[in-house]
This record gives sequence, C-alpha cells and structure tokens, in this order.
Amino acid sequence: MDIALLGGTGDIGEGLALRWAYDTNHTVIVGSREAERAETKAEEYETELDSRGQDVAIEGLGNEDAAARADVVVTAVPAYHLTDTVEAVADVLGDAILVAPAVGMKRDEDGFHYNRPGVGSVTQLAAKAAPEETPVVGAFHNLAAGRLANLDADLDWDTVVVGDDTDAKDTVCELAEGIVGLRALDGGPLSNAAEVEAVTPLLINVARHNDGLHDLGVRFQ
Amino acid sequence: MDIALLGGTGDIGEGLALRWAYDTNHTVIVGSREAERAETKAEEYETELDSRGQDVAIEGLGNEDAAARADVVVTAVPAYHLTDTVEAVADVLGDAILVAPAVGMKRDEDGFHYNRPGVGSVTQLAAKAAPEETPVVGAFHNLAAGRLANLDADLDWDTVVVGDDTDAKDTVCELAEGIVGLRALDGGPLSNAAEVEAVTPLLINVARHNDGLHDLGVRFQ
Repeated sequence: MDIALLGGTGDIGEGLALRWAYDTNHTVIVGSREAERAETKAEEYETELDSRGQDVAIEGLGNEDAAARADVVVTAVPAYHLTDTVEAVADVLGDAILVAPAVGMKRDEDGFHYNRPGVGSVTQLAAKAAPEETPVVGAFHNLAAGRLANLDADLDWDTVVVGDDTDAKDTVCELAEGIVGLRALDGGPLSNAAEVEAVTPLLINVARHNDGLHDLGVRFQ
Repeated sequence: MDIALLGGTGDIGEGLALRWAYDTNHTVIVGSREAERAETKAEEYETELDSRGQDVAIEGLGNEDAAARADVVVTAVPAYHLTDTVEAVADVLGDAILVAPAVGMKRDEDGFHYNRPGVGSVTQLAAKAAPEETPVVGAFHNLAAGRLANLDADLDWDTVVVGDDTDAKDTVCELAEGIVGLRALDGGPLSNAAEVEAVTPLLINVARHNDGLHDLGVRFQ
C-alpha cells in the first residue's frame, strides 16, 4: 500500500514513516509544504534505515503530489494546520483514506488540557475539510513521537481507531498493526474521537508529574 | 486508616470496600443514605471476605455517621448525586480527605461521551461543594467496577490521582497502591481532572467495539 505522510518531516510523521518503512512492505511517501524539505527528510530516513540494514526507497514530495500518489494519506500536522493541509490536497484525495492523528491542546500553569473544537474533535475538523467521497479515519492520536521515531524502543501501545467507514477503518487498523508493538482497537464512529484525543494531554501530565515516566503511550487492559 | 465509602453499597463502592478490606489493614466503613442498607451490604462484604478466610469487621452506617468516623471519605456515588452527597456530610468532614472518583458521561447512538461540567470536571464539583478546610483529591475514576469487585480478578491498572494538597494526594496514592495490582500516578493539580475523567467513556467505547475486551482499565507505559 502507498502511504503519504503530509507533514511527514515533523516528529509524529518521522516516527510513522520510519516504523512503516522498517516494519512493513508498504511504500512510504514523505510530504511537506516544501518539496525540497520533504526530499531532505526522506533521505535522512533512508540513511537511518540503511544503517539498520534496511534498503528502502522513501520519496519526498510536496504535500499535493504525495497525496495524489497514495492509497492512504496521513495528516501528520499540528491541529492548527489540519484544515489548511486537508484543503490544500482536497482536489487529489478522491477515495484515498484520510487519516488524522492530530490533537488540540492548550497549556496553563497546571498542565496540558484537551482543547475540544466546536465541531466535536480535531478528527472531525479533518472530516469537515475533506471531500465527501474521501473516508476519514482518526488514529495514532496517543503515540509519543520521540519513542515512535526511535527504532530501538519497544512500543507495547494501543491506538484507538475511529471512523464511520468500516472498510477504511479496517484498512487503518491493519496498517497500525503492521507496526511492531502497536495494537489497533476499534473506538467506534468518528464522533467518538474526542475521548481518544483527550488522552494525549493526560499522557503529558502524567509524564510531567511522575519520575521515570516519559514518552508515554496507553494500553487498555 | 479509617476509610468511609459514601454510597459504598453501589458498584464502585463495593469494589473499593472489598479490595481495601482484603488487601490492606485499613478499616472500611460502608456509608449509604439509608443506614440499614449500608449495614446489609457491609454484612454481605464480610461474608464474601470470610469465605476467603479474611475475618474482618466492616461497619455499615448512614453517610454522615460514616464520614464523621473517617480519615478518608470516598464519594462512591454517580456524578449527579455528588454535590448532594458532599453537602450532606459537609459539617462533619473537617480535615478528612475527600476523594471523588465520579465521572460525568452522556450516551448517544454512537457511544459514551465525557460530559464536562461548567466548573471544569466532576472532581472539581466535589471540591466546590466541600468545606474549605477539607482537601479534595480525584482518584479511582477509570476502574471497571465489575472487575474491581471480583477478588479473583487481577487488575494491572493505573489510577491517576489529582489534587492541590500534596499531603492529601500522597495519602490517597498510598491507599491506592495498597490495592494489589493498582499503580497510583500523580496527575498534577485538581484542574487536570477532566482529562482523567474523560478516559472512562473511552474505556466503555473500546470495550463495546472490540470482541474479548470488557471491564477495561488503563495502563500508561
């Protein structure tokens, strides 16, 4: 499967790109608003994988070219860039699956808090910006980017996948479980995304207040 | 330590009462709006513990008498009874630690959702209703009552503890870790409670949509 990571030069994009390229046979395409930056990062990822004996080609393209080539398009951008990013590639999405991992947070002196958008969740912001024929799935909200991008680190995490299109959700669950140490769980329809997203500020608060815990993910058991 | 479980006849109260009585040497007092009902349940818990070779006395009292006797008062009541329950015992709380495990949820056709009160969280509702000298701590929000009350079941769960009074929070963390299989994590100040509470509807959604998963708790790792 061809996976485009829009904003694939950022931290969560780097982690997903490296893990998919290392753990699976999927083709990873790194997207960025600047094609040149995407190319540079793609080369970095290739070098990292090569140093681990994995000889894979990762292409770097502008976001729109990356999206046009992919079966699955992951918007690995911060929440405040999400709508713009989806709108910029809307004409080429077609029936590709759009995956939104972004979470909205605000910070005060006490800690991080979930910043729920009026539409219900950040994942639903992506759905609102996407063309009607494009199935939208929420996934990968609660992954600590640092550990994800470190191929020496074991994950042992869950990711809750939400969406209204069952086939698209199944495909994303399979992609998620291709990453070693990641278990995909069905969280139900897209309207259940807010509670998934709200786990991310909690993970940050717990890491801040407990010695020895950092780069946390979550496991439901 | 003397622990009163207000609404200790309900499902989360039953689980905490049995676990503390079984796993620790703390004195457990079951409270209810009706003292007679508290007595009946306390006897049931004694019988259950006796059948496992644990000969402990559990007292059942009206909520106010239970609260007056305790060092730690746990409001094991649904969110919509929380304010009333705290107000009904406010005169006797003094500097006892008040612990609120309640979560507000609403349900629609898609699943369960966190129902955040205007004051920020259900835990903060308890703080608002409590006397000024009573430290309020949020804990035990994300425990599946059925598994908690089944002493044959292993937990292997985390509970995130939030509060503004560090000593009170430390005491509650110790109480939590007295329960075998439960790890207490510091979630920071009381104002971080909403993100903890929001995990509970997520656990229910995940259990509903994934075969073989039920009575879920959470582990941060």
